[in-house]
Amino acid sequence: MALTFYYGSGSPYAWRVWLALEYKAISYALKPISFSAGDLAKPEYGAVNPRRKVPAVIDGDFPLYESAAIVEYLEEQYPAGKSLFPGSVKQRAIIRRLVREADEYLAHALEHLVEQVLFTKQDKWDEKEISAGRSALLKELQIFEGYLRNEWLGGELSAADFTLYPLIALSLRMEKKKSDLNLKAGIGPNTAAWMKRIEALPCYEKTYPPHWKAAA
Amino acid sequence: MALTFYYGSGSPYAWRVWLALEYKAISYALKPISFSAGDLAKPEYGAVNPRRKVPAVIDGDFPLYESAAIVEYLEEQYPAGKSLFPGSVKQRAIIRRLVREADEYLAHALEHLVEQVLFTKQDKWDEKEISAGRSALLKELQIFEGYLRNEWLGGELSAADFTLYPLIALSLRMEKKKSDLNLKAGIGPNTAAWMKRIEALPCYEKTYPPHWKAAA
Repeated sequence: MALTFYYGSGSPYAWRVWLALEYKAISYALKPISFSAGDLAKPEYGAVNPRRKVPAVIDGDFPLYESAAIVEYLEEQYPAGKSLFPGSVKQRAIIRRLVREADEYLAHALEHLVEQVLFTKQDKWDEKEISAGRSALLKELQIFEGYLRNEWLGGELSAADFTLYPLIALSLRMEKKKSDLNLKAGIGPNTAAWMKRIEALPCYEKTYPPHWKAAA
Repeated sequence: MALTFYYGSGSPYAWRVWLALEYKAISYALKPISFSAGDLAKPEYGAVNPRRKVPAVIDGDFPLYESAAIVEYLEEQYPAGKSLFPGSVKQRAIIRRLVREADEYLAHALEHLVEQVLFTKQDKWDEKEISAGRSALLKELQIFEGYLRNEWLGGELSAADFTLYPLIALSLRMEKKKSDLNLKAGIGPNTAAWMKRIEALPCYEKTYPPHWKAAA
């Protein structure tokens, strides 16, 4: 039985897992979840992920959710081919630390902004909240700019890159909805060069969020 | 060179690492960090953890921060003895998912409450915030009550238990500051029995937060 991947276009967490699947060349069946059609609330999805979020996978008869746990699982269950946690025990520790920092600090700053800019009607925007969220996100972008002194975030290309990129892409994407966010101001030269390197990977082209492509 | 463990009494994240060190019987030098003496802000601590949080470790000359990454590192670097991620690849995946859920959902609900109850002066408490934080935390406690059907959170005793227990202990501890929080109401029979099992472990006695002991 193959691996089924429950994906939602626009979710940076789902994108992370898609990048990992493609990078490791694991075969999977893509199961798109439509947020607007209410797929997350459907009874059958509760059996896949009781928290009703994407991504999730079912590998054979084994369901798993939480994107970071899925990425670790893919690495252990499919050890052939490219590694998502390459290098020595210490290098792997740094990769895991970076994944954690992206999720714990950058993603949480981003989620505050997403809640306002994407999930709140424009006439209800709380500009004070948006401004505080923007500052927190810019601070994190600056920290990661400092981390991105080398070719890849954790030294070699790894799960850390696949965690960070979708979060930054979504940050910049929000400017389509609110043009004066100007989060681009937080993208320093290291980050900009690293983004170009990610965007040159074959797995990037394949996994670019379909509805972003459609909307351009 | 031995492992130095930077610990702060009361931090559930530092407690997790302490439990892991003791459970795996890794030798370490305990370096207590005093929040009230401003140790986190001291220049020398910035070299240990630029985010100026506890816990952190320096193993030989290798500094590492973010408690969940430290726990994974200890498991890989010190494979002898007891395992923090025991079992099959699938069991390990479930343990990692549970660690993530505790950190992502329960800890974040808790942190909102801690911000108010412990870090805000009583006459500035925002009761609406406190009430919302309490509801979010109770919802998470209920989810984990459902997960705790077996002896240990992830089947066998693991990093998942050492992640969850300090978070729940801090939740209940807040009632000393604000007695009407009544978070005990969220501790179901599974959780209560599991807490007793944790409290019977030798590593529990050894790692109980010193300043909680002093204040009783």
